[in-house]
Amino acid sequence: MKEFIGEDFLLNSETAIKLYESFAKNMPIIDYHCHIDAKEIACDMRFENITQVWLGADHYKWRLMRTAGVEEKYITGDASDREKFQKWAETLEMAIGNPLYHWTHLELKRYFDCDMVLNSDNAEAIWQHCNEMLKKPEMSARNLVINSGVKLICTTDDPADDLRWHKAIREDESFNVQVLPAWRPDNAMNIEKQGYVDYINKLSEAADMAIADYESLKAALRVRMQYFADMGCVASDHGFEYIMYEPASDEEVAEIFNKALMGEKISHNEVLKFKTAFMLFVAKEYKKLGWVMQLHYSCKRNNNTKMFEKIGPDTGFDVINGNSQSWELADLLNAFEMNASLPKTIVYSLNPNDNEAIDSIIGSFQNSEAVGKIQHGSAWWFNDNRDGMIRHMKSLANQGILGNFIGMLTDSRSFLSYSRHEYFRRILCDIVGEWVEAGEYPYDMASLERIIKGVSYNNVVRYFGFENV
Amino acid sequence: MKEFIGEDFLLNSETAIKLYESFAKNMPIIDYHCHIDAKEIACDMRFENITQVWLGADHYKWRLMRTAGVEEKYITGDASDREKFQKWAETLEMAIGNPLYHWTHLELKRYFDCDMVLNSDNAEAIWQHCNEMLKKPEMSARNLVINSGVKLICTTDDPADDLRWHKAIREDESFNVQVLPAWRPDNAMNIEKQGYVDYINKLSEAADMAIADYESLKAALRVRMQYFADMGCVASDHGFEYIMYEPASDEEVAEIFNKALMGEKISHNEVLKFKTAFMLFVAKEYKKLGWVMQLHYSCKRNNNTKMFEKIGPDTGFDVINGNSQSWELADLLNAFEMNASLPKTIVYSLNPNDNEAIDSIIGSFQNSEAVGKIQHGSAWWFNDNRDGMIRHMKSLANQGILGNFIGMLTDSRSFLSYSRHEYFRRILCDIVGEWVEAGEYPYDMASLERIIKGVSYNNVVRYFGFENV
Amino acid sequence: MKEFIGEDFLLNSETAIKLYESFAKNMPIIDYHCHIDAKEIACDMRFENITQVWLGADHYKWRLMRTAGVEEKYITGDASDREKFQKWAETLEMAIGNPLYHWTHLELKRYFDCDMVLNSDNAEAIWQHCNEMLKKPEMSARNLVINSGVKLICTTDDPADDLRWHKAIREDESFNVQVLPAWRPDNAMNIEKQGYVDYINKLSEAADMAIADYESLKAALRVRMQYFADMGCVASDHGFEYIMYEPASDEEVAEIFNKALMGEKISHNEVLKFKTAFMLFVAKEYKKLGWVMQLHYSCKRNNNTKMFEKIGPDTGFDVINGNSQSWELADLLNAFEMNASLPKTIVYSLNPNDNEAIDSIIGSFQNSEAVGKIQHGSAWWFNDNRDGMIRHMKSLANQGILGNFIGMLTDSRSFLSYSRHEYFRRILCDIVGEWVEAGEYPYDMASLERIIKGVSYNNVVRYFGFENV
Repeated sequence: MKEFIGEDFLLNSETAIKLYESFAKNMPIIDYHCHIDAKEIACDMRFENITQVWLGADHYKWRLMRTAGVEEKYITGDASDREKFQKWAETLEMAIGNPLYHWTHLELKRYFDCDMVLNSDNAEAIWQHCNEMLKKPEMSARNLVINSGVKLICTTDDPADDLRWHKAIREDESFNVQVLPAWRPDNAMNIEKQGYVDYINKLSEAADMAIADYESLKAALRVRMQYFADMGCVASDHGFEYIMYEPASDEEVAEIFNKALMGEKISHNEVLKFKTAFMLFVAKEYKKLGWVMQLHYSCKRNNNTKMFEKIGPDTGFDVINGNSQSWELADLLNAFEMNASLPKTIVYSLNPNDNEAIDSIIGSFQNSEAVGKIQHGSAWWFNDNRDGMIRHMKSLANQGILGNFIGMLTDSRSFLSYSRHEYFRRILCDIVGEWVEAGEYPYDMASLERIIKGVSYNNVVRYFGFENV
Repeated sequence: MKEFIGEDFLLNSETAIKLYESFAKNMPIIDYHCHIDAKEIACDMRFENITQVWLGADHYKWRLMRTAGVEEKYITGDASDREKFQKWAETLEMAIGNPLYHWTHLELKRYFDCDMVLNSDNAEAIWQHCNEMLKKPEMSARNLVINSGVKLICTTDDPADDLRWHKAIREDESFNVQVLPAWRPDNAMNIEKQGYVDYINKLSEAADMAIADYESLKAALRVRMQYFADMGCVASDHGFEYIMYEPASDEEVAEIFNKALMGEKISHNEVLKFKTAFMLFVAKEYKKLGWVMQLHYSCKRNNNTKMFEKIGPDTGFDVINGNSQSWELADLLNAFEMNASLPKTIVYSLNPNDNEAIDSIIGSFQNSEAVGKIQHGSAWWFNDNRDGMIRHMKSLANQGILGNFIGMLTDSRSFLSYSRHEYFRRILCDIVGEWVEAGEYPYDMASLERIIKGVSYNNVVRYFGFENV
Repeated sequence: MKEFIGEDFLLNSETAIKLYESFAKNMPIIDYHCHIDAKEIACDMRFENITQVWLGADHYKWRLMRTAGVEEKYITGDASDREKFQKWAETLEMAIGNPLYHWTHLELKRYFDCDMVLNSDNAEAIWQHCNEMLKKPEMSARNLVINSGVKLICTTDDPADDLRWHKAIREDESFNVQVLPAWRPDNAMNIEKQGYVDYINKLSEAADMAIADYESLKAALRVRMQYFADMGCVASDHGFEYIMYEPASDEEVAEIFNKALMGEKISHNEVLKFKTAFMLFVAKEYKKLGWVMQLHYSCKRNNNTKMFEKIGPDTGFDVINGNSQSWELADLLNAFEMNASLPKTIVYSLNPNDNEAIDSIIGSFQNSEAVGKIQHGSAWWFNDNRDGMIRHMKSLANQGILGNFIGMLTDSRSFLSYSRHEYFRRILCDIVGEWVEAGEYPYDMASLERIIKGVSYNNVVRYFGFENV
């Protein structure tokens, strides 16, 4: 029996252990997609207690607590931090096989030097221990980042954001980790959402120009893209409930936007047309700027209206849209290509059944503009666990080139989540090690080094063209 | 090499064996969802021969025989029971990897004390042996139930059923296993089906009141629900080809029902509206009564019209609807919640690709009303096999709390199918044992005992609130 | 650690090795579905170099090269064969886990007696070695077929094809492998395609009769079917982006066809109606002729319009349609059955998520006309890899009778791809061996021999009714 989360955690063969120890463990980290607040880095945030770190904003954990029957007051309510921590400890006990079980204990080990297994009995001891640790300077936001081996972070930012904190970090010579903005223009695209006109006004201010029609919307977005580019941005990100492909003439699109500005009702079909046109526009710009385009889809958001009305979005009520959008995805990528505007693109679906279709689709849009120009992004959110990662990587390997994969990201708000890169790398090495031991790939350490170091770190640096990392 | 279906069948590690032997094997059984005819228990039915037991009503086996090229007369036709048994033996030989191969031999071992491997050569010997065994008193319906460790059974019953056999069992002090009715009102919901008006008349009689409009339909259903509740019912069940969510006003719904009563044609959209409204109504009632609501979906029925016309429904011609209804499911559960009427609910899809979406959806409707208030029901029907169970439990573990799962049910018409609980528990212990041996969960026998005993038995008792079991 | 592609490649237990060596390895091959050009056999084609063999027409490899960032000139362009080979070697290095990695090295071993692992350094040596080998007479098309143990090949042919090369092979007494045509009437069904009228004219010529309406289309097809039957054809094949089921009256169908002949625009719904009617017609004919009907679906073709315009179809730009057509498939098969015209049928979906639904559907249309009358065809194209085969066979085993499966086909244009039968058989033996060793099927060598030899060879002979093989 193996020790719980021991040295060879998730590594089930000699070769897997060797690959991990030799080629993966010590590679630095590029976290090219996360939701960290740049302000927290700029201000080198400190944490008072472990509940702040773990439960302050982690709706993965909130869901699990609700599943355990915990009252909402101990989750997002006004219970004390100590009480909330107790409820988390109780919840965790039965959560065998859940990635949060692993992540929790990996974080205890890696960041808090704590080998205990959290449960309701020792929650007090762990609470005390972690809170003591949090007083140390190495537990500040910046030091957590540095000590995790992180070289570069891309945050997620609205086009109207002034990026003041990114600027502050950039200008602070005492901190050498690059913290780059990433462009997430969902608010400008989601024409059907309440508050769209207000948002357009906000964007107009940020771009310092009037937005009176679709042409000026595009102009304003261009202004902001340039600003982001000047601030080091190399990546965009888009979130969709589903991928749409509904072509329309420029006139139609302009008219739909005008209707939105006037507060008129937009039909479902018009929404699809607007979004399709919007994407065609931004993709072309990304291509010019050399940015990577990220497409996240099949996430249906805010499904529990009662809770949404109480505590708002991003609180643990999003779900997988189980329908496939492979048809629309293929058509949309083709439209980009026909428009001479398909940038480097990373596709992520929240529906794990999409893996094989996605891998077949990206294979149809590869070319010599980049190695692995179109990527199938790492197993995401509800799939960000061992089974999800294995499904993703095996599908990718079966249809594409695993050795060219750009690998893991955290998608997280937490400074402790870099241990997920460790989790990912162990799983990668385990898969590869198993193949080698089974005689399915030769025991050729030079090639294996290229593959493991590539997927862990080198590929993502080459793909985005990051410099000075 | 392990012995065929030996002591450690399906248990592939020391820890798995220990978990099974210590915590799973001897737990009693709650069979909270089955299709046993209460009359067979009330009358303590006896069986003349093994064909009656195995092939009399088991359309799983019929399908397999057709796949083997067996003529229908040996399946549902007028061939002798001995001939039918022979054909089953021949069919089974090539069915390597099929759960029926395992269940057949598990049942031979557990109920008939027979270690032989059934094939066409020894079919005669096994026929003789089993038929001798069936003469013994311990092979009566009641004794099979008792000796299987079953403490409670929920059957599946139509609202118009008088439940006379449940009453007889309840009043029979010589039999202590609880046999409770479960409420399955599909006939009252399926407004598009032939014979709907006849059914409404039948329901009207059972409720002893006229059903002249939607209001009186609801009143009649309430009368019958109360009757079921008085008879110990705590669970409802619903079968859907697909989940619908099409809201409508009360007036619309009333009018659709009127049209149905008048024999007028109902459009597809009207059917969806009626069913949505029907579910909103019954869910609210279930919530008041404290019942558990079961939603079974993605089963497309009676696909072979030629055979349907010959031998009717439930004869082996149903299929998986491979389309996802995650979108509608999320919306329907949300509508229940907005209506303050989401009872404890168990969701089962016949489409195994739905696992991850379902687990994400149930996670959005959990709250402190119960531990694991919304459950993802055990792998069902075509998924009721090792691979299906593993997929289901791993998906559940990845997104939810496996330790709070209410576990297995038979969904069966047979008194021998309790060995499927053994099958399930072995697989559960194997998964958990593997995690423990791999260092992914600590070797903490106290927690493991809670988890294994919980999923095997304790959770379902707590969840339904069963008493005196 | 096992040797790279050694004797026990893919065989992970003693029993698996024994099954493979005793029952699978030496069975002959029936390749009942491929895309080999009969002319190449008739003329006993020779190859100048390994690039011609491997990269001349293999769009699987082309896709992978594009994914590696190789320029199109080294793929389908005017670079030299030596340069192209170099690029392939470079591509392969990172393609760990890809079936092309295995197939490439299996082919090097089995056909070229070469144990080297191809990479960019040794590409020159392997180039020289293989090209030398290709000069030997045993490397001619016919000898490759014979030495691979192939007894019978079904090609894929258009109804208008004169089958002259099949005739030549048939009449050549020096070559004893049967090379039968298979009927693929997609061009006659795809009424929405550009050039449809031209094709109908071509068909009219081939049938030597005017095609002026739907009745004469059917008559012409009957003429050609008879010609194919006379040439030994026993199988048809159909390719669909998706399965449709849209019934229509004879008059409607006739009118739709007339519109197509007149060059009028056909609506989407009319296309569905025409195709449904077309399939009902041909299925009835197949049933009369005793042919096997193959339905391939969920392949969305030519997704990259830019490349399609440059280099045409079948160049590596097809994708999986991830949507399920289980509903329509069940309805279509039922319509055949109601029409008394459901022939032996093999169903293949390119969407691997369809496995379980397909297995449930075929189980609803089995009868005593044949053992395993409706088959779930082997994992296809993007699924033609170890994971895909395992998923397919386990789904089949769980719901049907694996022992009656008709097994592998190459679906290939290459004379080296028979090693995929070896690949398949090893995986089959590994799955079965694992079950036996785990005590899930008895160690009964007589039954195991029937199963392994059946799936490898005997079942397909029985199913198609091949003679003199």
